[in-house]
Amino acid sequence: MSSWLPSLITETPEQGYEMAVKLARVAVKMTQPDDEARSRMRPEYAEDAEALIAVSQVVATHFATVAAANDYWR
Amino acid sequence: MSSWLPSLITETPEQGYEMAVKLARVAVKMTQPDDEARSRMRPEYAEDAEALIAVSQVVATHFATVAAANDYWR
Amino acid sequence: MSSWLPSLITETPEQGYEMAVKLARVAVKMTQPDDEARSRMRPEYAEDAEALIAVSQVVATHFATVAAANDYWR
Amino acid sequence: MSSWLPSLITETPEQGYEMAVKLARVAVKMTQPDDEARSRMRPEYAEDAEALIAVSQVVATHFATVAAANDYWR
Amino acid sequence: MSSWLPSLITETPEQGYEMAVKLARVAVKMTQPDDEARSRMRPEYAEDAEALIAVSQVVATHFATVAAANDYWR
Amino acid sequence: MSSWLPSLITETPEQGYEMAVKLARVAVKMTQPDDEARSRMRPEYAEDAEALIAVSQVVATHFATVAAANDYWR
Repeated sequence: MSSWLPSLITETPEQGYEMAVKLARVAVKMTQPDDEARSRMRPEYAEDAEALIAVSQVVATHFATVAAANDYWR
Repeated sequence: MSSWLPSLITETPEQGYEMAVKLARVAVKMTQPDDEARSRMRPEYAEDAEALIAVSQVVATHFATVAAANDYWR
Repeated sequence: MSSWLPSLITETPEQGYEMAVKLARVAVKMTQPDDEARSRMRPEYAEDAEALIAVSQVVATHFATVAAANDYWR
Repeated sequence: MSSWLPSLITETPEQGYEMAVKLARVAVKMTQPDDEARSRMRPEYAEDAEALIAVSQVVATHFATVAAANDYWR
Repeated sequence: MSSWLPSLITETPEQGYEMAVKLARVAVKMTQPDDEARSRMRPEYAEDAEALIAVSQVVATHFATVAAANDYWR
Repeated sequence: MSSWLPSLITETPEQGYEMAVKLARVAVKMTQPDDEARSRMRPEYAEDAEALIAVSQVVATHFATVAAANDYWR
C-alpha cells in the first residue's frame, strides 16, 4: 500500500519546499474532501492576496519542519 | 481508562500527519463542546477558503510537534 | 501561595494538551480581566468557526512548548 | 540605567508567562507610542474576541521563547 | 539544470533575510502561477497594511528556518 | 559596504528585541518600497488594534530567532 508521505527526507531544499506545499494542501483536502467544493473555491482565493499570503504562511511552517528533518541539507 | 492521546509516537509520517489533524480538532471541540453547534458551522467553513487555510495552519503547527517527537521518522 | 502554573511537566500527552488549553485561556483573562465581559463574548465566538480555529492555533503553539518541556513524553 | 528586559530568566513558569505578556505588549507600544491612542483602542479590542485570541497567540509565541530560555524550568 | 533553491546556506544574515523573502514569494507563485493575476493583486495589497504585515510574518517564519540552517551565522 | 544586519548577536535581550522590531519592519519596506505609500498607511494601522497585534506577532517570531541566536543571553 503506497503512502502519500513515506518520508520527510528529500534530496534537495527545492524538493523539500515542494513537500511543504503538498503538506499544506493535504489538510485542506482532509477538511473539505469534496473535489467540486474545492474547485469552486479556487478561482476565489487565487485572486485574493490575503488568502495567497495565508497559504504561503502554512507552507513556511511546514518548510521549517521538513528543513529540520533534513538537517537543513547541510 | 483510555486516552485520546496516549503518545505522540507514530509509526509513519502519514500517521503523524493524521495525529496533527486530530490535535487541531480537539481544541475546537473543547472550546465548543456542543456537537450540534459544531455541525451547524461545518457547511459554512468547509466552503470558506480562508477558514480551510487557517485549519491547515493549525495542522502545520501540530505536525511540527509530532514530527519532532518522532525525531522526524529518520 | 499556590500558582496556576507550578510546572510545565505533565504525566501524559493528554494532560499536556489540557495545560496548553489553559495557557491559551490565561492570556485572554489577563487582557480582559472582567468576567462579565468575557461571558458576553463567549456565545459569540463559540459559534464563529474562524474564532474557534484561532483558539486551536494558540493551543497548538502552547502544546509545542509543553511537549518540548516534557521531551515529548518519550 | 535600568532595562525593561534585563534577562529572559525567571524563577517560575508563572513569572515566565508574565514576561511573555509583557513582551507582547512592548511591540504594540513601540509601534504606537502615543499613550492616548492606545487607551482609545483598549475598550474596543477588550470586547473583541478575535483580538483577544490574537493577543493570546502573541503571548504563546513569546512564552515558547521564554520557556526555552529557562530550559522549561525543569 | 539550475535550482531556485540550491542551498539554505548564505554568507551573511542579510543574504539569509533576502532568501526568506524569496521563500515567502515562491509559495504565492506556486498557488497562483498566472503572472497577470499576481500583477493585478500587487497594487491592492501593497497599499494594505494588514497584507504587508502578513507578508512580514511569512518572512519571519522562513527567516527562522534559514537562520537555524546557518547556525545563526555565529 | 555597510549592512543593515551584520549579525544577529546583541549584547542584551533588550537590544535583541529592538533587532526583532527592525527585522519585522524591513520585510514591509521590501514589499512596499515607496516611502510615501508606507507613510499614508501609518496613521491607519497605528489606530487599528488588530494591525498592532499582528505587528507584535511578527516581532515575537523574530525575537524567537534572535534569542536563539544569542543562546538566550544566558
